[in-house]
Amino acid sequence: MDAALKRELLDKDRKRVWHPFTQMKDYAEQDHLLIEKAEGLYLYDADGNRYYDTVSSWWVNVHGHGHPRIKQAIARQLEETDHIMFSGFTHRPGIELADKLIGIVPPGLGKVFYSDNGSTAVEVALKMSFQYWRHVGRPEKAKFAFLEHSYHGDTLGAVSVGGVDLFHATFRPLLFDAHRVPSPDVRDWADGRPTAEAAEASVAAAIEAVRRLFEASADEIAGIIVEPMIQAAGSMRMHPAAYLAQLRELCTRYDVHLIADEIAVGFGRTGTMFACEQAGVTPDLLCLSKGLTAGMMPLAATLCTDKIYEAFYDDYETLKTFFHGHSFTGNPLACAVALESLRIFEDERVMDRVRTTSEALRARLPRFGEFSRHIANVRQLGLVAAFDLYEDAPSRRAYPFTERRGFKLYLEALREGLILRPLGDTIYYWLPHCTTVEQLDDIVERTCRVLERLGYR
Amino acid sequence: MDAALKRELLDKDRKRVWHPFTQMKDYAEQDHLLIEKAEGLYLYDADGNRYYDTVSSWWVNVHGHGHPRIKQAIARQLEETDHIMFSGFTHRPGIELADKLIGIVPPGLGKVFYSDNGSTAVEVALKMSFQYWRHVGRPEKAKFAFLEHSYHGDTLGAVSVGGVDLFHATFRPLLFDAHRVPSPDVRDWADGRPTAEAAEASVAAAIEAVRRLFEASADEIAGIIVEPMIQAAGSMRMHPAAYLAQLRELCTRYDVHLIADEIAVGFGRTGTMFACEQAGVTPDLLCLSKGLTAGMMPLAATLCTDKIYEAFYDDYETLKTFFHGHSFTGNPLACAVALESLRIFEDERVMDRVRTTSEALRARLPRFGEFSRHIANVRQLGLVAAFDLYEDAPSRRAYPFTERRGFKLYLEALREGLILRPLGDTIYYWLPHCTTVEQLDDIVERTCRVLERLGYR
Repeated sequence: MDAALKRELLDKDRKRVWHPFTQMKDYAEQDHLLIEKAEGLYLYDADGNRYYDTVSSWWVNVHGHGHPRIKQAIARQLEETDHIMFSGFTHRPGIELADKLIGIVPPGLGKVFYSDNGSTAVEVALKMSFQYWRHVGRPEKAKFAFLEHSYHGDTLGAVSVGGVDLFHATFRPLLFDAHRVPSPDVRDWADGRPTAEAAEASVAAAIEAVRRLFEASADEIAGIIVEPMIQAAGSMRMHPAAYLAQLRELCTRYDVHLIADEIAVGFGRTGTMFACEQAGVTPDLLCLSKGLTAGMMPLAATLCTDKIYEAFYDDYETLKTFFHGHSFTGNPLACAVALESLRIFEDERVMDRVRTTSEALRARLPRFGEFSRHIANVRQLGLVAAFDLYEDAPSRRAYPFTERRGFKLYLEALREGLILRPLGDTIYYWLPHCTTVEQLDDIVERTCRVLERLGYR
Repeated sequence: MDAALKRELLDKDRKRVWHPFTQMKDYAEQDHLLIEKAEGLYLYDADGNRYYDTVSSWWVNVHGHGHPRIKQAIARQLEETDHIMFSGFTHRPGIELADKLIGIVPPGLGKVFYSDNGSTAVEVALKMSFQYWRHVGRPEKAKFAFLEHSYHGDTLGAVSVGGVDLFHATFRPLLFDAHRVPSPDVRDWADGRPTAEAAEASVAAAIEAVRRLFEASADEIAGIIVEPMIQAAGSMRMHPAAYLAQLRELCTRYDVHLIADEIAVGFGRTGTMFACEQAGVTPDLLCLSKGLTAGMMPLAATLCTDKIYEAFYDDYETLKTFFHGHSFTGNPLACAVALESLRIFEDERVMDRVRTTSEALRARLPRFGEFSRHIANVRQLGLVAAFDLYEDAPSRRAYPFTERRGFKLYLEALREGLILRPLGDTIYYWLPHCTTVEQLDDIVERTCRVLERLGYR
């Protein structure tokens, strides 16, 4: 791109665009990075510089950018139908995707309700759960429980079950009341895995808190929502599968819906197709988005059991309809892309590659041991790895918030051709499934160079 | 499509898909209509039957289905970038679309914040308004006002400012408190236009109610949200532009944000590019979606004044960031489609055609006079026309709710190759901009045949 056009675009960006989750004043002295091309694991800026997209473009990309089969699927679908409404009408990609999804998610889910993004998938789950209990004659079951450090989206229903105060506290007067339970996140890690003691302790304490809550209040609780295995926006906190297994037991025993938010972790990111598989559990409601379209375009789905569906199935006059729907529900283009992505999973044996890359990622974690003065809690699951920066790691003394160490590291990493996008002082990889072991080696080396330059050795 | 495949798909649909805004038991004895092809103003089912898409596929389609320039725009964008994140990064279609939008909306709006659908556009507006008052030292301005019969989306924040009890009342325990003011909808119509007396009366009463509310409580009110000119989901209720002009004055006088939800009415549907133009007003926040992408795929935008933006612009440590963002924010494909749609508006002089078709539509309304025993309130604005079914129209005696007259008419209209999708007993057209006068004539004739067959003469 020529320099004049680049300047013109960046000036317009500055003048007209309000970017998400961004303090725009952070860009007073620097531009947003203008991306001109995306291919495989790489983004290219307007000057032709290349960057590793190690965060999968905000945790969505799966097969790499510009996968030819995805492009072909879009072109094919455009020859049939573009968008048509999904109420009263139906179409092949919407039907086939629903059928395919039911075939690969944990067994016991029966119905698919489409929406557009993670927030709406969560809102649908909350509203379905809430309305379900009214239909079965238990309207007093009207509250929700959520985990501290959880993030489920930015619409006000999703914010109401959010546990990241930095994002959510401001809006308290607009939120419904919900029960906050402790996070089961592990605090002690060795070579990327929780130590046995830490794992046991974290699960026992967190489950006991849920048990006490349900014992006291299950009669008033519709459901509990959880991000299985990784609380992603909540600083990539990871927990053992045993937590999910025991949570499922409690939900069944106390008649509370288990709502699994696999928006971020679904579609292979944690090393299994869905994170719930690692605990062998099926939630009552399952929220999917992001990787659903391989990260190409917005689409979401909320899956539920037939039991929940049937509580809404009645004569119209009983007014049990689930009155919810977005204009672009079941968008045929997005459904066609999602279907093609699932076919790629099969044809290219993507989950085999994920396992190989995950093992390679784990094997490289000791490399960060060189920085043990400032880095701790090196943890990994599947294609996700994370660690935390500390002023003094052994004592876990944090840097002052005002130093914005994570943001500075982000800027430095860009100079190294690497997109690292810390959450506060938590640095992480959220790799696309197409990452090769050679690319992984290069990413880790570049990360170490950045850490080195910033004086973290 | 061969019969076996059709049957297989419809069986899977029945088994796996929960359709939006649908009592699924309504489809116990009949299938959803399986659409195989969409072209221009027409949808084609699996048996090759053709249907007029007179509701623009849920109020989204603009240039007709399968417009070649839209398809080309998608193909072109796919050769550059598919989806990339919009936080820290930016891209040409996202920038150019924002710049273009600011150039065509009512003057005074300065910034564009993208999201994915109408609900999220509204949630962004509500959260921005709420947070704005905190940043300027007036945190007590924390409540919202909305209009009876209004609909702003299905996420819980949007539902909180919703005034259609059928959709919204169930969720009351999950909603924030808001002030409901009367709708300014006109009750007396002649040849598609409000009578002068009825227009004046509806505006005066509705404005006086807002004035009283603001007089008593503006200190606690952040904003009031309104669908300009047409309350669409609230049974296509229309109001005079004078209401908006006077509402704008009240908002300015009492320091309350005017939030315009032009998700349905924007992009030419009411005869002007934006409905606010008809009153010559600029809102503080403007929500757009649906027609934004010409109805192709999900995209939304919330536009705000520079004054609002600047209240968030500060050093990061002050924590004034607007912590909101969806994974697919500013999706490049959707932005490229939206840009191309706006170019088509210019190149094909679409608004000229809209004016012609709108006039033709108005000229044909007297045709419904033949059904004056059962039809009343024939009203029209731009490409939208509506009327209500009554057991006795002159006395406005309604049919019993349980008779579901609208739903029966919907089924009968399908047999006539016409998609009419009543809201209760309100029948309406929501025509795409590509509709020709010849097609319009055919649509009106078919509608009359359906009314005739159902005994409404």
